[in-house]
Amino acid sequence: MQTTSSSSSDALLAQLEATHTASAQVRNLSDAQKQALLERLAANVAFATEVILEANGKDLRRMDPSDPKYDRLLLDVSRLASLAQSIRDVSALPDPSGVTLLERKLPNGLRLRKVAVPLGVVGVIYESRPNVTLDVTALCLRSGNAAVLRGGADAFETNTVLTRIIQTTLEHEGLSRDCVTLLPTDRELIKTLLTATRFVDMLIPRGSDSLIRFVRENSLIPVIETGAGVCHTYVHAAANLDKASAIVVNAKVSRPSVCNSLDTVLVDEGAAPGLLERLDPEFRKWKVEVFADPVSYAILSRMAYPYLKEANPEDFGREFLDYKCSVKVVRNLEEALGHIRQYSSRHSEAIVSEDAQVCRRFLESVDAAAVYANASTRFTDGGVFGLGAEIGISTQKLHARGPFALEKLVTEKWIVQGEGHVRW
Amino acid sequence: MQTTSSSSSDALLAQLEATHTASAQVRNLSDAQKQALLERLAANVAFATEVILEANGKDLRRMDPSDPKYDRLLLDVSRLASLAQSIRDVSALPDPSGVTLLERKLPNGLRLRKVAVPLGVVGVIYESRPNVTLDVTALCLRSGNAAVLRGGADAFETNTVLTRIIQTTLEHEGLSRDCVTLLPTDRELIKTLLTATRFVDMLIPRGSDSLIRFVRENSLIPVIETGAGVCHTYVHAAANLDKASAIVVNAKVSRPSVCNSLDTVLVDEGAAPGLLERLDPEFRKWKVEVFADPVSYAILSRMAYPYLKEANPEDFGREFLDYKCSVKVVRNLEEALGHIRQYSSRHSEAIVSEDAQVCRRFLESVDAAAVYANASTRFTDGGVFGLGAEIGISTQKLHARGPFALEKLVTEKWIVQGEGHVRW
Repeated sequence: MQTTSSSSSDALLAQLEATHTASAQVRNLSDAQKQALLERLAANVAFATEVILEANGKDLRRMDPSDPKYDRLLLDVSRLASLAQSIRDVSALPDPSGVTLLERKLPNGLRLRKVAVPLGVVGVIYESRPNVTLDVTALCLRSGNAAVLRGGADAFETNTVLTRIIQTTLEHEGLSRDCVTLLPTDRELIKTLLTATRFVDMLIPRGSDSLIRFVRENSLIPVIETGAGVCHTYVHAAANLDKASAIVVNAKVSRPSVCNSLDTVLVDEGAAPGLLERLDPEFRKWKVEVFADPVSYAILSRMAYPYLKEANPEDFGREFLDYKCSVKVVRNLEEALGHIRQYSSRHSEAIVSEDAQVCRRFLESVDAAAVYANASTRFTDGGVFGLGAEIGISTQKLHARGPFALEKLVTEKWIVQGEGHVRW
Repeated sequence: MQTTSSSSSDALLAQLEATHTASAQVRNLSDAQKQALLERLAANVAFATEVILEANGKDLRRMDPSDPKYDRLLLDVSRLASLAQSIRDVSALPDPSGVTLLERKLPNGLRLRKVAVPLGVVGVIYESRPNVTLDVTALCLRSGNAAVLRGGADAFETNTVLTRIIQTTLEHEGLSRDCVTLLPTDRELIKTLLTATRFVDMLIPRGSDSLIRFVRENSLIPVIETGAGVCHTYVHAAANLDKASAIVVNAKVSRPSVCNSLDTVLVDEGAAPGLLERLDPEFRKWKVEVFADPVSYAILSRMAYPYLKEANPEDFGREFLDYKCSVKVVRNLEEALGHIRQYSSRHSEAIVSEDAQVCRRFLESVDAAAVYANASTRFTDGGVFGLGAEIGISTQKLHARGPFALEKLVTEKWIVQGEGHVRW
């Protein structure tokens, strides 16, 4: 990383200050005004389809179509239509700002209220997905926040056009275009952004592990971390093995590339042969590579399971993001809990058991954003949980845990009204 | 700062891991068990008064009595009695953990609950005040958290005895002594603590600005920042000047060394002569040094106010923590809001006006943890707000804003129960 040239760093700070100033405009919008703004934005995105796809084509031409990022970058008529629909969906969600969280009259007569208010300026640092530009803008504006977008160089043409549409919409509604700002992609400017504590209230990095780590290690602005999911499913001795097998298969193969997919199966000794027998045909179909501990290895090799490997220690606690998983046979619930405590990334963890007591103990003891009994970890999702669109799954414990959605784009403010009250 | 010797760093990590493991024990305590634990702790502190004061005497003998830290370090019979009472007060507060925050049945039949759960391990880094050892322990245990205490070298003897009493109490209640751990004060070990993300869930630095800044800049663990208060009181043209003067005097002189005390008076042109006339005798009594802008300087010098200085630009946005303040005459509400936007540390801000519309606009527009109409900023306090003991006033926007008290020592957990549910 080069030294920041002070002139471009100054220009960036001026841009951030302008967004900080403009944030007061969005904060003061009424609920109806924010909805009208998003409806207009959705309409303008639909209207500008051709221009957006043209810019997207320019970005795509600079990328090798065999690069996995190509598909993430690609927009088409149907994807754009669904993006416009997402903006309308966000518009229909209840505004989290302005809600009174607490109201009391103090013994001294002071009237005290705690209300949810917009954060101010939300910054998002992301990579090639241009849909983030519209998703984040919709969520920020709906909750009364200004947005600072720092997208990737790969998507620069697309993001530029999308931002122009957003800014035109803002101006049409009588707002400053600075309410949503797209930052230059120069790498050396990132540090300026990460330390702009006066102008940016929250940062959300979205993308690779290394991006998230870099932001966490260098930011002075509070960061919401949407990290990796190392997800376990524990099949207890008293599990219904048909259910257990269906849940494990679903958690592994329905969408292996996402953070709530299964990485490790833990299974009680007694249940292991029955479970692995049921998994065998399904896992064969999907060619799931299994990294097995000695006991499960013995069982699976007796079945001549074709995609079998001996597990190394590092295969536990590993996020596979692929048709791969590790399997470990445990003695009991306690050993399963201990394993999860050691290897979990505290994202989503599941138990399968017909014993309600055992399920309760698992749900209470496991420290994770989402804990499941008799269901697939794949359900961890803002939409599924009824929160609407999400920016990611927070695996940290402060402010937001689990799906990070509209409802968390607010902070609190204490409002105190007196009649000349003093405190000696 | 020296290089960390890896052996002591390893020992520290082992200690943090032990506390992390022990945190499961506190998490699983019932409400009644947690109350019994705190009642027992309060009794044991009272019982051990003599031993605590003896250790405190050793710490005090190493410090110059004219050092302002001397009084912060000092314990006596009455201070210890009030510390024991604080523990009982925390015991009487409602347990924030275990509360169901949301409960819904999803269209697919999944039962979803969001509950408040303990954070796990809370770390506090503080300086000479040994009361923090007991306050933080009480708040952490009450809410089901383990605690890691890193006190200052000045208070080491006192903190060691207090921690021994805490640990004896834990063991007597059948818990591991690792639930509360006091760390060595070696400076080079701080970085090990700040990066122990696997074992510590939240860090709270308490003390000087430089300590807080160091923690913020070097911690990989989420930090709750309880920072400086640069607090304004704006006296509007339509203010009742008797009320205004009483509020300004109270906010400045009742306890100038605390973060919610007044730093700057903003006053509308028309109200300036009347306000300053009323402040004059009061401020003389307290010898309040006034850093005045040209207009207020002219008025005050006509009154021959004896402690008058011309304000330099850096006297605005300055936290005085003393019998000093700056005064600026403004044209109107807009100019006052602009000034506050530029100089506020977003802690506590007040307006004095009989115009309800103007007050509402101020309360809505000012971005701060606490905003006041017709009351002194000195009320920003967890106890006053009815939250019980506080660890500090958070001036950041994530997780907690304003008084950081028991209710915020929890995170959320999503609990999902199904009957074999899968998601394709």
